[in-house]
Amino acid sequence: MSNHGKENTKNTADEHQLVHHYQRVRHQSVTLINSLSAEDCQLQAMADVSPSKWHLAHTTWFFETFLLIAHSSHYTVFNPNFKTLFNSYYNGIGEQFKRACRGSLSRPSLDDVITYREYVDRAVIELLSAPCSESIKQVIELGLNHEQQHQELMLMDIQYNFSVNPLFPAYCDTNNNRIENPVTQASPLSFVAFSKHTAHIGATEQTFSYDNERPTHQVLIQPFKFANRLTTNAEYLAFIQDGGYQNPEHWLSDGWAQINNARQTAPLYWHKVNNEWFEFTLAGLQPLALNEPLSHVTFYEANAFAHYSQARLPTEFEWESVANSNAAQTITQLTDNCWQWTNSAYLPYPGFKPIAGVAGEYNGKFMANQMVLRGGCKLTPQNHLRLTYRNFYYPHQAWMRSGIRLAKD
Amino acid sequence: MSNHGKENTKNTADEHQLVHHYQRVRHQSVTLINSLSAEDCQLQAMADVSPSKWHLAHTTWFFETFLLIAHSSHYTVFNPNFKTLFNSYYNGIGEQFKRACRGSLSRPSLDDVITYREYVDRAVIELLSAPCSESIKQVIELGLNHEQQHQELMLMDIQYNFSVNPLFPAYCDTNNNRIENPVTQASPLSFVAFSKHTAHIGATEQTFSYDNERPTHQVLIQPFKFANRLTTNAEYLAFIQDGGYQNPEHWLSDGWAQINNARQTAPLYWHKVNNEWFEFTLAGLQPLALNEPLSHVTFYEANAFAHYSQARLPTEFEWESVANSNAAQTITQLTDNCWQWTNSAYLPYPGFKPIAGVAGEYNGKFMANQMVLRGGCKLTPQNHLRLTYRNFYYPHQAWMRSGIRLAKD
Amino acid sequence: MSNHGKENTKNTADEHQLVHHYQRVRHQSVTLINSLSAEDCQLQAMADVSPSKWHLAHTTWFFETFLLIAHSSHYTVFNPNFKTLFNSYYNGIGEQFKRACRGSLSRPSLDDVITYREYVDRAVIELLSAPCSESIKQVIELGLNHEQQHQELMLMDIQYNFSVNPLFPAYCDTNNNRIENPVTQASPLSFVAFSKHTAHIGATEQTFSYDNERPTHQVLIQPFKFANRLTTNAEYLAFIQDGGYQNPEHWLSDGWAQINNARQTAPLYWHKVNNEWFEFTLAGLQPLALNEPLSHVTFYEANAFAHYSQARLPTEFEWESVANSNAAQTITQLTDNCWQWTNSAYLPYPGFKPIAGVAGEYNGKFMANQMVLRGGCKLTPQNHLRLTYRNFYYPHQAWMRSGIRLAKD
Amino acid sequence: MSNHGKENTKNTADEHQLVHHYQRVRHQSVTLINSLSAEDCQLQAMADVSPSKWHLAHTTWFFETFLLIAHSSHYTVFNPNFKTLFNSYYNGIGEQFKRACRGSLSRPSLDDVITYREYVDRAVIELLSAPCSESIKQVIELGLNHEQQHQELMLMDIQYNFSVNPLFPAYCDTNNNRIENPVTQASPLSFVAFSKHTAHIGATEQTFSYDNERPTHQVLIQPFKFANRLTTNAEYLAFIQDGGYQNPEHWLSDGWAQINNARQTAPLYWHKVNNEWFEFTLAGLQPLALNEPLSHVTFYEANAFAHYSQARLPTEFEWESVANSNAAQTITQLTDNCWQWTNSAYLPYPGFKPIAGVAGEYNGKFMANQMVLRGGCKLTPQNHLRLTYRNFYYPHQAWMRSGIRLAKD
Repeated sequence: MSNHGKENTKNTADEHQLVHHYQRVRHQSVTLINSLSAEDCQLQAMADVSPSKWHLAHTTWFFETFLLIAHSSHYTVFNPNFKTLFNSYYNGIGEQFKRACRGSLSRPSLDDVITYREYVDRAVIELLSAPCSESIKQVIELGLNHEQQHQELMLMDIQYNFSVNPLFPAYCDTNNNRIENPVTQASPLSFVAFSKHTAHIGATEQTFSYDNERPTHQVLIQPFKFANRLTTNAEYLAFIQDGGYQNPEHWLSDGWAQINNARQTAPLYWHKVNNEWFEFTLAGLQPLALNEPLSHVTFYEANAFAHYSQARLPTEFEWESVANSNAAQTITQLTDNCWQWTNSAYLPYPGFKPIAGVAGEYNGKFMANQMVLRGGCKLTPQNHLRLTYRNFYYPHQAWMRSGIRLAKD
Repeated sequence: MSNHGKENTKNTADEHQLVHHYQRVRHQSVTLINSLSAEDCQLQAMADVSPSKWHLAHTTWFFETFLLIAHSSHYTVFNPNFKTLFNSYYNGIGEQFKRACRGSLSRPSLDDVITYREYVDRAVIELLSAPCSESIKQVIELGLNHEQQHQELMLMDIQYNFSVNPLFPAYCDTNNNRIENPVTQASPLSFVAFSKHTAHIGATEQTFSYDNERPTHQVLIQPFKFANRLTTNAEYLAFIQDGGYQNPEHWLSDGWAQINNARQTAPLYWHKVNNEWFEFTLAGLQPLALNEPLSHVTFYEANAFAHYSQARLPTEFEWESVANSNAAQTITQLTDNCWQWTNSAYLPYPGFKPIAGVAGEYNGKFMANQMVLRGGCKLTPQNHLRLTYRNFYYPHQAWMRSGIRLAKD
Repeated sequence: MSNHGKENTKNTADEHQLVHHYQRVRHQSVTLINSLSAEDCQLQAMADVSPSKWHLAHTTWFFETFLLIAHSSHYTVFNPNFKTLFNSYYNGIGEQFKRACRGSLSRPSLDDVITYREYVDRAVIELLSAPCSESIKQVIELGLNHEQQHQELMLMDIQYNFSVNPLFPAYCDTNNNRIENPVTQASPLSFVAFSKHTAHIGATEQTFSYDNERPTHQVLIQPFKFANRLTTNAEYLAFIQDGGYQNPEHWLSDGWAQINNARQTAPLYWHKVNNEWFEFTLAGLQPLALNEPLSHVTFYEANAFAHYSQARLPTEFEWESVANSNAAQTITQLTDNCWQWTNSAYLPYPGFKPIAGVAGEYNGKFMANQMVLRGGCKLTPQNHLRLTYRNFYYPHQAWMRSGIRLAKD
Repeated sequence: MSNHGKENTKNTADEHQLVHHYQRVRHQSVTLINSLSAEDCQLQAMADVSPSKWHLAHTTWFFETFLLIAHSSHYTVFNPNFKTLFNSYYNGIGEQFKRACRGSLSRPSLDDVITYREYVDRAVIELLSAPCSESIKQVIELGLNHEQQHQELMLMDIQYNFSVNPLFPAYCDTNNNRIENPVTQASPLSFVAFSKHTAHIGATEQTFSYDNERPTHQVLIQPFKFANRLTTNAEYLAFIQDGGYQNPEHWLSDGWAQINNARQTAPLYWHKVNNEWFEFTLAGLQPLALNEPLSHVTFYEANAFAHYSQARLPTEFEWESVANSNAAQTITQLTDNCWQWTNSAYLPYPGFKPIAGVAGEYNGKFMANQMVLRGGCKLTPQNHLRLTYRNFYYPHQAWMRSGIRLAKD
């Protein structure tokens, strides 16, 4: 009896903490649009990105669908149309509104979406006011990590959405924020050597991780060298000025096709104005910061630059092994600046099992045609990062904050 | 001297009237978005349509560019970026922001556009406070007719933009407005016979008309018959139910390709829900009004229905000749319901001269691949209509309020 | 009785003539591939063109389908698969093999197609060995005109198919043939004036014509001027050198889009090699013949050149009226060099009736989006021409021998 | 001196053997078109495939370019235009004729290509009549392996090219050949277990291999099970009949998109005729052979079937390790029937170095977006296979003879 009472008490303490965490993360999403208008929040300048409003609704839909509808018997759905409108890609749930047309929805309004968030938040907090099962807690934890992923996506997408406007709107200014406050000096580039070893790769079950980071397993790694920092804008500029975009020998065949079809001669956000290089950033159009790590490049650009530099990209296993080693102290910019393209395809680990249920579509079904990026970036919520984290994008994509870490045999 | 004084007085009276007319027309545009949010005003659900915000800015740009910059020596441009952003297709003015991306502009905001309108309006009214040249008055008249065209476009575009939203938003309600208040009865269909005659076609120089309506000229017309009213939804539904969309013999080759590629089996805005037909209207999704004139059909659909009906579409010359005749009294729905597809290609009249200057791109350069529609529709400002008016669209387009008037040899 | 005998005799005489004509026309088609290999006859370098082999089979299919199957009770089909394979666009007959894939058929071989031709020819000639009905004779006449159209198409298509090969194969040589023997001198350009009049347009029922040339009717024509000859390569070169392809004011909107999308700066077959202009012809790559009429231009190019020349293109009615007039004697190159773009859309004449039956798809269903060309060209069989002939192509097409005849108000 | 003499003798013996091998392989290519016409050899029914004629010319160009021009000082090029026409993708050599248009070349003729082959063969044999350097021998060895790859490609491409013809031409018959003589019985499916081990992966330098198979290296392999035979048509048919193509849970996201966009409900070459399943083969359309290994499936189809079967695809390392093990004796159909999709992306081995010079574009530049297939197939020349061989295709491709080998954790 007393045990039972204690257990309840202990549980309620857990739930209290979870409510607190829930509120903090959920609030953070709304904070991101503080400087934006409802019009800004509706932009979708290409099919890959989504309106901020849609992100705010979809992350709410995630809790409504996988938590409230699934686990709360008396929950009343906010609006039955949202089932389709804010389903991203869960075929197990049903049809989805066409991805490329998310910017064509003025209704629900931003205000309505905020109301939707509040409605769902109240229901979640009410659910957490009583002791909850482990599976409920796991869905909340997954939902909050999902929300944090979307916080980064929101910033990436806002940058892209603003980039097509000739007025070059700024989301923030350069000085008073972590996001676009450029590095002023770059340390000399050097390579740290690692000998052949067996690395322990992947996440354990003890703390939260996505299914695609599991199970832990051993990988045999050959000797290699790993760059002490990321490639800078200055270094990439030298590649451009040395005819890098005109020389097919550096490029993968599909990459060469891409830059020739698009007549691309510089990274996505670089602009040459009156013979000076600028970069479009969340702080608007800024003079190219030469010492700043290069960002927003495709896998093809990263690979071509590595070839030009007589180096290569690291595998995701090399990356994780370095990050877990003592040497990682002399190696900078691992998680705080740009995601780093690896030369590893996004594939299941041996023994991979998708999480059970419909949320099993979260990661596994994307395991084709994409490459792994490791680390983290300035836009990533800090408590969202892990050294086992596997980010993934198609090789032709560049609107995320992707940079280059060189490696050598 | 006294004459000179009188002339001034007279002129100022003209200018006063013009100011009044200007204010009324300009105000009307803003009235159209009364029931819309800033988010609604940013929608662009396909490349053919534009956001309401863009219409409001572009019509203002028209006065700024062709009137103020051209004729007012001390005018200061509101924002130099607008030269590109709100230029629709005037190559003579310079580059244009990519048409299909107009919905990707959250800045300037709707509020900024309203401010832009007020800024330009003040400058125009100031210009009109002194006696003005004839050419200035002509630009204003052109600009106001241009604005009225865009008032209709705004409504057409809003309907399309709302149509892709599964929430089926309503712009207005069914009862208290002229736009979506359906006809409750259709008169019996009959054909009025016209004998061979020479018709006087086109607009004179006495009142305002577009260059494409001029010069007046004679056209020899063979005997024909002309339907007393427009085709109804009920009649078109019979065509569908009789397998009309599956029978190639009714269709022009390009039309047959279109409906098969798009797997189209009904007009653009028709929806079959639980075996009942509905139509998406500016008042939202409504039960199909059987007696209402059919609207929003392509030229191909109009032509196929005419073939099915053992009839044909009239030429634009037959249409204009009928409208100018006494018989027009027994012939209904000429200008007040739907634009009527004719079987005339949009081509220059003999002796056609585009208006001088850059505004010469207004009409002439579109004289290929499009068909003429005649009449007017519920969305057209009433004082904008003329029996010589030549509206034109590509045969595959249907988002304007286009209907069917049958004719026979 | 004797009358009956006489009639039979007379009829048989008719049939004899028809056999003779049939054999001559059918033989001519095969003659066209004398200089070609089976590989050449299989080429289809774009969807608009067809392999020579396909033309030879399709024209045979036409007789098999509309004559033998329809009118000969004991005829045995050569190969039932050909019903689909060699049906061009007759939905009334059934499905068609995909047009763009005609070059992907190595079977039947060219030899098999020749055998097919001989098989059908024997059956046709046998049918004509007995007295025939009028409707049979009409089908044969239609089939032979159809075959002659395809003779011109074969040459046009061969030129295009060879044009994409960097070896620039020649179909014929420059000297010993009518086709590519260039004009060495051009008469001075002048314009012949015509006053306002009513023209009799269209073909009578007395001799063969296509349904789209009928019925005859009167058209009121305003005063105009008509160029005495076609535009030369030299004149068009001046347009190019004067920046014609860079100046939007000359171009229709759709044409400006086409040349910019395709980055086109000269006509389809013009090549600049070491700063000298060449033209790809049926005689291979040849130095541009400056006095030769310009050919292989789009409607957009023709229209732009006319605008640049402060002229316009004639209507098809002006063209026909001129050709029927005495003045036509001083006006050269009407039918013997290049088809001439008119500014008339391809639309039905008042009272137009497609020919009865499935062959009614021959012309009528193409009456949208195309423009009329008048005259004839070097590739057209001479006895196939009529002054009432209406040729038609899409405004963006240029692989037929299309040239420019200027007119003025 | 005597040494020198001996060395020469020894070398000449080597060269003699090489000549013999060269002649045998080169002759084999021409043998493949024995049953084809020149028309057949020109077919290119999609951009991924090439005409047989082009293969015959390109493999010859390979020897001309990398051997004769590079190593034979007095060699005269057969035709300078072939440098571009028959260059597949070697940017280091120069421009290439557009891949998708290879079927639009009737010139050079098949006869001309055969003459080209004989011309180059004579020059190669003459070169080998004197003692040759190691690097020359290596180029010949590479060229012959390249030729053998194209022998398989020719057969794959012929099958595809014939498959679009409704006549369903047969390249061979079912009985008297290895290619399309179907398996009549399938052994029961079972899985062989392998424990965790370190495998030696890749090719040594001792015998010929492609650069992408090197260097040898160790890979740590977790315990797994490996199917004793390939998936049969019967097993895949059960997947189809169980709604496999309608159930998104089995499919990778990109695969689900592909089958829905293409409305695909069965493998590439399967046809349902009158409710019976047939398969298009090199022997024409044949009743589906239920016991025959399934072939011509995409990676997506393979992956979906594995998921449906509660299994997975093996990695390329598992595959190679099995093939090198004793267990491979109980495991059938490793190299003699179908290439087997692995779940390994085509990426460089640790320490990968492309072969030196322009031929370095052979393999390395394709290391993105493709998946590895292992084994070999009925169409592969038998002496071309190695257990280290890495074949690679895009996941959406299916015109090669690709099948399914299941594995399990």
